[in-house]
Amino acid sequence: MLSKNQIKYYKSLQIKKFRQIHQSFTVEGAKSVTELLASDFEVELVAVTEEFRAAHSRLLEALDAQVVIATADDLAQMGSYQTNNACVAIAKTKENVFIDVAGKEFVIVLDDIRDPGNLGTIIRIADWYGFQKIVCSETTTDFYNPKVIAASMGSFTRTRIYYGNLVSYFEKAAPARVTGTFLNGTSLYDYNFPSSGGYLVLGNEANGISDEVAALVTDRVSIPRFGGAESLNAGIAAAVICDNIRRQWK
Amino acid sequence: MLSKNQIKYYKSLQIKKFRQIHQSFTVEGAKSVTELLASDFEVELVAVTEEFRAAHSRLLEALDAQVVIATADDLAQMGSYQTNNACVAIAKTKENVFIDVAGKEFVIVLDDIRDPGNLGTIIRIADWYGFQKIVCSETTTDFYNPKVIAASMGSFTRTRIYYGNLVSYFEKAAPARVTGTFLNGTSLYDYNFPSSGGYLVLGNEANGISDEVAALVTDRVSIPRFGGAESLNAGIAAAVICDNIRRQWK
Repeated sequence: MLSKNQIKYYKSLQIKKFRQIHQSFTVEGAKSVTELLASDFEVELVAVTEEFRAAHSRLLEALDAQVVIATADDLAQMGSYQTNNACVAIAKTKENVFIDVAGKEFVIVLDDIRDPGNLGTIIRIADWYGFQKIVCSETTTDFYNPKVIAASMGSFTRTRIYYGNLVSYFEKAAPARVTGTFLNGTSLYDYNFPSSGGYLVLGNEANGISDEVAALVTDRVSIPRFGGAESLNAGIAAAVICDNIRRQWK
Repeated sequence: MLSKNQIKYYKSLQIKKFRQIHQSFTVEGAKSVTELLASDFEVELVAVTEEFRAAHSRLLEALDAQVVIATADDLAQMGSYQTNNACVAIAKTKENVFIDVAGKEFVIVLDDIRDPGNLGTIIRIADWYGFQKIVCSETTTDFYNPKVIAASMGSFTRTRIYYGNLVSYFEKAAPARVTGTFLNGTSLYDYNFPSSGGYLVLGNEANGISDEVAALVTDRVSIPRFGGAESLNAGIAAAVICDNIRRQWK
């Protein structure tokens, strides 16, 4: 059974301040939790229904964490984003380890992505296209926000994330070309992504890439438009660009 | 001033049954309403704040519809998806007019897209890439659902939509190749979209393209995957495919 204190602790972790104090975060739903259990994250607590435990007994037995049986009602009460959760979990956040381009790869750099759904979607897309390093401005929404974790559909387990001031970041990072999207950039269809890899900067949903970061972008590209829509959302732009990189690199 | 009956009427149109009875739908938010007013939709009623009227007086004066001044409170009470709406509107739905491939174009065919946010996003993406004809299975969510209208970000005004049984549709539609996405299809990067245009089928979020429609697909394609994510959402898939068509056609 889940104790009142466990439920209270779980709920506190929905708030960034408490995630930072406890260095822990929450994961909910069968898909995300099973991916968490198969990952290198340190899991503190898993609360599952009797049915989920029976279906995943081998995975749960191999686990070095507390497994608690919870009622579907308990889980529904705790889960803020999905109904009929079969399970929730608490895991330790990872340290903020510096990452940069090392070999033929693109590091995705997010300049002030505010919407948790967008960040989660970008993580999922980057993972689909095999780009697992994501660098975030300090103003970008928290990776461990439960809405980010949910929207990433398990891809958070394969992502390496680093938060920092982007101007300082580029001073320290391995030199490579920095591609960024601008309305007046070179058409993606005429642009050659560097064959040795580089950085791909995606800007804020409303304001695009900030001036300080724009000054560090070496290659300005834009997604060609053929109709009347004024813009594409951040996740869509990320997907189209990642797809163009992979097509060139195939 | 808005009357109680007007507010009641507006609210009733949030429900599909009443949209069908009245053949009317609602639009909210400054961006969507200004695009509506500039479109060929027949507008019944516009409710705006004093500030909005002052800022858009020329647009509103040219309008053959009732313009009512509303308080921000009225608008907030009526608007279900956005806060601080400067305006809401009621317009007539269009007739369900048959559309098919006519010339070098792609008609997008949606097989059971259930989520209004996904449908709105697909409309916006299709509009960005200049594909304005969308055919929907009868099970696809209603185009005039306020969440669809909101997510389309004004692109609903440029879209021609037709709902029908897809098997009957393809019996009547102009013959052309039918491209559909399947997990085991040809890589998009190796596939040549028909240079004379065709149909692009996108399937249900969870189950993909139904068996009856799959039988009519002539060209099976898939979006190449390089990492661990299991899937991409329907809007992302639509964007990546539309982008690949346009790059080939440039």
